Amino acid sequence: MIEIIGYFAAVITTLSFLPQALKIIHTKDTTSISLGMYALMSTGMFLWFIYGIYQKALPIILANGISLVFTMIILIMKIRHR
Amino acid sequence: MIEIIGYFAAVITTLSFLPQALKIIHTKDTTSISLGMYALMSTGMFLWFIYGIYQKALPIILANGISLVFTMIILIMKIRHR
Repeated sequence: MIEIIGYFAAVITTLSFLPQALKIIHTKDTTSISLGMYALMSTGMFLWFIYGIYQKALPIILANGISLVFTMIILIMKIRHR
Repeated sequence: MIEIIGYFAAVITTLSFLPQALKIIHTKDTTSISLGMYALMSTGMFLWFIYGIYQKALPIILANGISLVFTMIILIMKIRHR
């Protein structure tokens, strides 16, 4: 039971960046998006990804690899459309 | 060394929501913020928090508890100022 909550939590937090990425891809508006947040988040996700590779921990690699793609899209959109 | 990268990753991803929260508190502008993202993220962080309590895993409790405060602030600001 508690393991299911853990997997559910991992899937939800990983996919939560997708609606934000889609929203700014459609609107091209990033006015209220924080550059600092996505610079920090992408750096942190990349470090988690490296950590997962060293620890051979597939859930950490997958969750942070997928999130990193979304946060990088948001970061690039923010830099291009500010 | 790899443990330091893990702690560094945890601190960076946890604190990354802070500049976003501060930005919208100051500007009251949440136009380009995705409601779906912060609804999902807050739900996911809450589930991680519950998971951490069951597993008695303090790093999971702390990281997600702190992030949850920030994502809830952003979610409430989005609902109040959209």
